[in-house]
Amino acid sequence: MKNPNLQILVYGKNISSAKVSLKPYAGVKLLKTQKVENPNYVFIDLDITKAAKAGNLQFIFNNGTESSTVNYELRLRTAKPQAVSQADVVYLLMPDRFANGDESNDKYDDMFDTQADRKSPFLRHGGDLQGIIDHLDYFNELGVTALWLTPIIENNTHQTNEGGTMRSSYHGYHFTDHYQIDRRFGGNNAYQKLINEAHKKGIKIIQDAVYNHVGEDAWLVKDLPAKSWLHNWDKYTNTSYKDQPLFDVNGSKFDKKVTEEGWFTSFLPDLNQKDPLLANYLIQHALWTIEYFNIDAWRIDTYIYNDMEFMNRCNKAILDEHPNMLLFGESAVNTVISQSYFTKNNLNIPFKCNLPSSCDFQVQGAINTALKENFGWNEGVNRLYTTLSQDLVYQNPEKLVPFVENHDTDRYFSVIGEDFNKYKLGLTWLYTVRGVPQMYYGTEFLMKNFKNPTDAEVRKDFPGGFKGDTENKFLAFGRNAQENEAFEFNKKLLTYRKTSEALTKGKFMQFTPFDGGIYVYFRYTDKQTVMVVSNTKNTESTVPTANFAEILKGAKSAKNIMTGDTINDISSIKVPAMTALILELK
Amino acid sequence: MKNPNLQILVYGKNISSAKVSLKPYAGVKLLKTQKVENPNYVFIDLDITKAAKAGNLQFIFNNGTESSTVNYELRLRTAKPQAVSQADVVYLLMPDRFANGDESNDKYDDMFDTQADRKSPFLRHGGDLQGIIDHLDYFNELGVTALWLTPIIENNTHQTNEGGTMRSSYHGYHFTDHYQIDRRFGGNNAYQKLINEAHKKGIKIIQDAVYNHVGEDAWLVKDLPAKSWLHNWDKYTNTSYKDQPLFDVNGSKFDKKVTEEGWFTSFLPDLNQKDPLLANYLIQHALWTIEYFNIDAWRIDTYIYNDMEFMNRCNKAILDEHPNMLLFGESAVNTVISQSYFTKNNLNIPFKCNLPSSCDFQVQGAINTALKENFGWNEGVNRLYTTLSQDLVYQNPEKLVPFVENHDTDRYFSVIGEDFNKYKLGLTWLYTVRGVPQMYYGTEFLMKNFKNPTDAEVRKDFPGGFKGDTENKFLAFGRNAQENEAFEFNKKLLTYRKTSEALTKGKFMQFTPFDGGIYVYFRYTDKQTVMVVSNTKNTESTVPTANFAEILKGAKSAKNIMTGDTINDISSIKVPAMTALILELK
Repeated sequence: MKNPNLQILVYGKNISSAKVSLKPYAGVKLLKTQKVENPNYVFIDLDITKAAKAGNLQFIFNNGTESSTVNYELRLRTAKPQAVSQADVVYLLMPDRFANGDESNDKYDDMFDTQADRKSPFLRHGGDLQGIIDHLDYFNELGVTALWLTPIIENNTHQTNEGGTMRSSYHGYHFTDHYQIDRRFGGNNAYQKLINEAHKKGIKIIQDAVYNHVGEDAWLVKDLPAKSWLHNWDKYTNTSYKDQPLFDVNGSKFDKKVTEEGWFTSFLPDLNQKDPLLANYLIQHALWTIEYFNIDAWRIDTYIYNDMEFMNRCNKAILDEHPNMLLFGESAVNTVISQSYFTKNNLNIPFKCNLPSSCDFQVQGAINTALKENFGWNEGVNRLYTTLSQDLVYQNPEKLVPFVENHDTDRYFSVIGEDFNKYKLGLTWLYTVRGVPQMYYGTEFLMKNFKNPTDAEVRKDFPGGFKGDTENKFLAFGRNAQENEAFEFNKKLLTYRKTSEALTKGKFMQFTPFDGGIYVYFRYTDKQTVMVVSNTKNTESTVPTANFAEILKGAKSAKNIMTGDTINDISSIKVPAMTALILELK
Repeated sequence: MKNPNLQILVYGKNISSAKVSLKPYAGVKLLKTQKVENPNYVFIDLDITKAAKAGNLQFIFNNGTESSTVNYELRLRTAKPQAVSQADVVYLLMPDRFANGDESNDKYDDMFDTQADRKSPFLRHGGDLQGIIDHLDYFNELGVTALWLTPIIENNTHQTNEGGTMRSSYHGYHFTDHYQIDRRFGGNNAYQKLINEAHKKGIKIIQDAVYNHVGEDAWLVKDLPAKSWLHNWDKYTNTSYKDQPLFDVNGSKFDKKVTEEGWFTSFLPDLNQKDPLLANYLIQHALWTIEYFNIDAWRIDTYIYNDMEFMNRCNKAILDEHPNMLLFGESAVNTVISQSYFTKNNLNIPFKCNLPSSCDFQVQGAINTALKENFGWNEGVNRLYTTLSQDLVYQNPEKLVPFVENHDTDRYFSVIGEDFNKYKLGLTWLYTVRGVPQMYYGTEFLMKNFKNPTDAEVRKDFPGGFKGDTENKFLAFGRNAQENEAFEFNKKLLTYRKTSEALTKGKFMQFTPFDGGIYVYFRYTDKQTVMVVSNTKNTESTVPTANFAEILKGAKSAKNIMTGDTINDISSIKVPAMTALILELK
């Protein structure tokens, strides 16, 4: 590692009273040990030089009367993360809801939550990592190149009472032991297997990281190392979920503290990342995870609620080891300025965020709203145009991760009124604007629903992923005609996308929407130019192209990449109502 | 002047063929003369050192056969502009629609537009500078401290056909001779008189500058010095009015050119400020105006359509001479990022705008929308809160000029459904948030109307300003009970404002709106703290104040500055529905 420092947390009854020594090991030095309030912890600081070889470190703990030896394995580095970039398309899935590849691990009597029941939207359904492994060919067929799994780390928690119903943490966001993949997903071995198999098939893996909080049954909460590991309040205080106080030069300390240090929910103890030992624990876990499992990219949950100085240190620690790794945060905010504040930006302000990328909630909102509204000065497709016109605030807009839906939003197809033309139009934008597009399982076969009454509505099982399913959407014959049309649409566009230099590496140039709803943009390199002509009107339109001369550069004809047809004269282009043509210029 | 250079434009039949010399004058040197395409122009460049005394320069023009001498007066500098700041309240009026103080100048047969007729909303009504002089006490009574007049420079233009009706340029935006104040307003002398009288009464004058275009009857259009003085298009091209292409890193050259170089309307020739002689002409006129008339501040019309490099040079020329002058642009845009782009900002981008301030269209939109909407995550008063929370992008948010209406918008009182509580609530925000608040004539007595069918609807005559008016809103007895209540509300708040250190110099601190629509903010200095507690709900609310401890600093009581009442215990504060309390802490 570039960073030679390692801090080992050791847990044991009154361990802090033991004298700690390290059996001599070439290249490794014990720098110091640190105690905390709780006598059951000791922290060992090591210096691990480049000279150190793989092997077992041996620590001796002596409490005066007896002595015991504990091994700690130093492994060779083998991880080779592959950068996720514009060349990729991310597929977000929830392992519990995707496919059950191993029914033997659905539930365990020795875990706090012993239930698994597909009849309840709030309980575990048994999906697991083997279920994902079983469907890797599906991703290849669809054309996605990176999987983002909602968290797979152990969530050995009691069910929580949410609004009167008991709920399991099937979504995975309630960590209890960072160093264990949940047994119900298959444990560490299944995760290693998934990643190996995925890599073999050209599929990258994005891990969903949660630094802000842990589950209430986490070991570190049940036997807290020190009070300072949590945000403590005299009276329970929830975060306001408001982003504004975090960057508001007119804001108050009070509101900032509530946003940052208020708890995400009453059952998610909020970590105080200002505590240096806790901070180290979280950072080292991130580094370990990437090395141990060979993770390709890193999505950071509830980014804005974290301590920003901590996040910068944590991001830097990862980027120091893996400079090209895509780290992107969940900043579910409502303005471009706010979104830019929580990523590498062009704001000349004291706080400099070092996070390379962010889930692009602004594009998500813009696409969904654009398809619901009539065209207007600021409305309709002008939402998307205006959002993208503000890219000047980002250092790397091409690294942003736009999407049309995720596990926390209404389903895209429902939002747009189950209009199949709009469906294709919005996905065309998603897959062809700048950035690293992210889809959500089921997008490809028109899964629908609103979050009302709960978010479980948008987290339904993938039909065909579970024994006894009467439908199988993994296969063409299990999908109805429109679902197949949707699947083929995604497949065709994503398959083309993979091979298109313009879409995977190109720059982006957009023109002001005109004529009541025509929106034209280009992706281009020196070698290839792809033109996307969107007609958001309810009538067919003939679009003159003379105004695009600077980017057409004399091109006279183009290939419609979805139909394969050639348009021999692109001086004007006929576009059906509510349709985008994707044209590769010749 | 700090700038020793002066360029004199000389106009005369074939003047370019004359040899030009300057009669020796201590401290003044003729550097060179320049010709342009049109032989009727010559430009004389002078160097005027500090040693030069006031007096008459004498230029000799010799065409080989005869010689003539022309005087040019060098004046002493006497102007002492007073900075417009947060301590001021700006009152925007349209001289033609405000008051007619001199009926002898209503119209002239030797001007292109010979009409004046109050029966037509589109023709001149006869208002003039003497009419403003006649009502200076009114401004003092109301409590405003600076007047922004729509332009008063000569508009000797034909009426224009706009949508089938013939319209005069009563609004003043169609300049024909920059160096003449329109005779119908009283000419240069009346303007000098207004400014002298206004200054005596503590009222500052803001000039409305127009660089982007001139009227089609302007001398410089009728006998164009050079083709390059205008933006020429093969086929008439209107600006798109779109701001996005100007800063969009993904934008096209085509759209940028259309926005910048497209004409504002077909009858407003668009000036090409890249021409160095034209640029000099515009810049020198600005400098001359400020010196000659003793102007205090400078509002710049249609800011975004100008050439930004020119604007930076022009702004710098003024600021070099008057470093504290408030220059603010009209950037009628729809995002904070865009508004910040066109003023001194904290964007780390290649183009660095040097304009100190801007009309705050974001606050205008936020206040109007906030009062129309129900409270929501982003809606209602959260609009205002969110807008102000983005001040980090401005270098000087306190210099921005917020407003609730102007001559180009629907009337505020109509927008908010003629709800008097909302009226007071929104004006309380306007007068107490950060910035230099701007009101519009008639705001103070509830003038109403929407722009539909035309903007003349929001530019009605000030009742009482014209002979024969049956109503006189300048006087209490001419206003009805609610109008008087409105006037007294404005007067009381503005009168308090003048004496309040917190409101005129203080910092701003806002808290996240809570409890379904309670919005609390503070203005404060070391010596004074003013707390504004807004209840945007439809029911009375009791607002606990413990969360504001950091700014309350132990204050236990407060004075309600509108009622004079003392609140002895501010641990919680009762606020009626749709009301803001303005409290000076004790």
